[in-house]
Amino acid sequence: MKKPYVVGIDIGGTNTVFGIVDARGNVLATNSIKTQKHPLIEDYIQELYEGLSKLIDDNDATDKIKGIGIGAPNANYYTGTIEHAPNLPWKGIIPFAEMVSDKFGVPVSITNDANAAAIGEMTYGAARGMRDFIMVTLGTGVGGGVVCNGNLIYGHDGNAGELGHITIRRGNSRVCGCGLTGCLETFASATGVARSAREFLESRKDEESLLRNIPLEEITSKDVYDAAMAGDKIAQDVFAFTGEILGEAFADFIKITSPEAIILFGGLAKAGDLLFKPTKEAMERNLMPIFRGKVKILLSELKDADAAVLGASALAWEFKDEE
Amino acid sequence: MKKPYVVGIDIGGTNTVFGIVDARGNVLATNSIKTQKHPLIEDYIQELYEGLSKLIDDNDATDKIKGIGIGAPNANYYTGTIEHAPNLPWKGIIPFAEMVSDKFGVPVSITNDANAAAIGEMTYGAARGMRDFIMVTLGTGVGGGVVCNGNLIYGHDGNAGELGHITIRRGNSRVCGCGLTGCLETFASATGVARSAREFLESRKDEESLLRNIPLEEITSKDVYDAAMAGDKIAQDVFAFTGEILGEAFADFIKITSPEAIILFGGLAKAGDLLFKPTKEAMERNLMPIFRGKVKILLSELKDADAAVLGASALAWEFKDEE
Repeated sequence: MKKPYVVGIDIGGTNTVFGIVDARGNVLATNSIKTQKHPLIEDYIQELYEGLSKLIDDNDATDKIKGIGIGAPNANYYTGTIEHAPNLPWKGIIPFAEMVSDKFGVPVSITNDANAAAIGEMTYGAARGMRDFIMVTLGTGVGGGVVCNGNLIYGHDGNAGELGHITIRRGNSRVCGCGLTGCLETFASATGVARSAREFLESRKDEESLLRNIPLEEITSKDVYDAAMAGDKIAQDVFAFTGEILGEAFADFIKITSPEAIILFGGLAKAGDLLFKPTKEAMERNLMPIFRGKVKILLSELKDADAAVLGASALAWEFKDEE
Repeated sequence: MKKPYVVGIDIGGTNTVFGIVDARGNVLATNSIKTQKHPLIEDYIQELYEGLSKLIDDNDATDKIKGIGIGAPNANYYTGTIEHAPNLPWKGIIPFAEMVSDKFGVPVSITNDANAAAIGEMTYGAARGMRDFIMVTLGTGVGGGVVCNGNLIYGHDGNAGELGHITIRRGNSRVCGCGLTGCLETFASATGVARSAREFLESRKDEESLLRNIPLEEITSKDVYDAAMAGDKIAQDVFAFTGEILGEAFADFIKITSPEAIILFGGLAKAGDLLFKPTKEAMERNLMPIFRGKVKILLSELKDADAAVLGASALAWEFKDEE
């Protein structure tokens, strides 16, 4: 029987959101539980099972679920495990896909959030019909999902696509949470933008700025955006600087996999032209002629509220139908 | 009928080498013609046709050729064309694969040298059985071939794998032949090594060096290698510097496609541990823990003299057998 629905589960540090999705990317219903509530993984899975079962029943979807796709930090597609995720309550290596599959009796696939976003975009969003594109998520951190020939690139061990940790500034640069220095993520993320703003404010003490009304340590990327839109020079310079760095990184990605488009998702992507104009300019300037003017920078077409669930759910369409 | 042989043609700026190859990578016979002899592409194809036909006849291979694979600079796999190759005598866009196929009546595939090397390594060499690896050719320039899930990555337009032109030093760095600055190729190629030696000799004028016996502009990477092996400090430092840069680049490649191995080919790869030890150290130092100690750096297993023909020939095994 061809089953008409899939389930997407997005596991974030705070909330776990799950929903039922049809083949056109319509989200029938969603619900959520608190990720941190259960220090024991078994208790968490039990609450997830109860919540999701109810959602399925309420939506008349029993026996209509083809499979479950899960997006989670530090998830490994090949092994189905979540491995040493610093922001989740369960330590070590959790056989997550297997545990969920055992509970629900349907196939389960798991990958990290950025990979899920890429597959979601290819299935329902801005990358429909594209065989070669790169997904870049610009949130608290920077994540990546690389699609070549219509397939997501997992690499030999499932760890491909760590685009946020390529070294974009060498030598004595910003320290990253990953332990390296100069990672793209330390500049082109929401936290990176706030960090740049603090640096600019400190090194340009003589200049006035709307951002000086906010305690230095409390400045967010949203504050910098608002100030830039209000005409603040320092805030505008922060976005120009961030875009420059992002464009440099994009140019290197393009030389490696030559995508048709780079698709952006996440809080920082909302900055629009303030960020994308300098990004695009720096990208083109750092490309050889054979690549110039060819690569689109696009925004995700998945609705914010549903994007993570949609992305995760898209994984489940890859399962074969039962005979 | 299952045909037992393929033909590989390697088009270099000076010579065009062609050979007949069996499924195990044995080269039955090779011959060559001068690439620059005929300003008219039709004349060149005619000489190639005559030379290769004779080789096929002499080796009793008539009607046993499954297809022809061609490695050439600026070749596009998708379109079968050679496009604006600066070191070849024919200008513009040449429909090379079609022209050769029309002459010989067998399917023809074409790609650039580094991609051909990657497919050759996967078919007959160090990457047999690998589904995820990166080929890096270290010659006059730096070329790349990226294999993911067992497929060479061509990108949306056929231009993927330009690993020699990622920006490894930003800002006011070395000018590259491609028009950009700070490209990996300007450091980690044979010409890059010679350039580094000249820079080091000029900036360390007080230090003795065996290399000072050679006119500055005539120093080759081979001279630097010989001096380093003879214990010359400046020459050794050049290789340490080159390895450092190469390792930094490898670390970024790994974060993007997470290969099982990076396979090296080309003149500079002959430097052995002098180059690979600092490369490996820098690579590991620039990786996050999840990638560390996992990625092998391997040397090509294709014999030098045959490597280019073998690489090109491997393309032709991808053709389906005629019914």
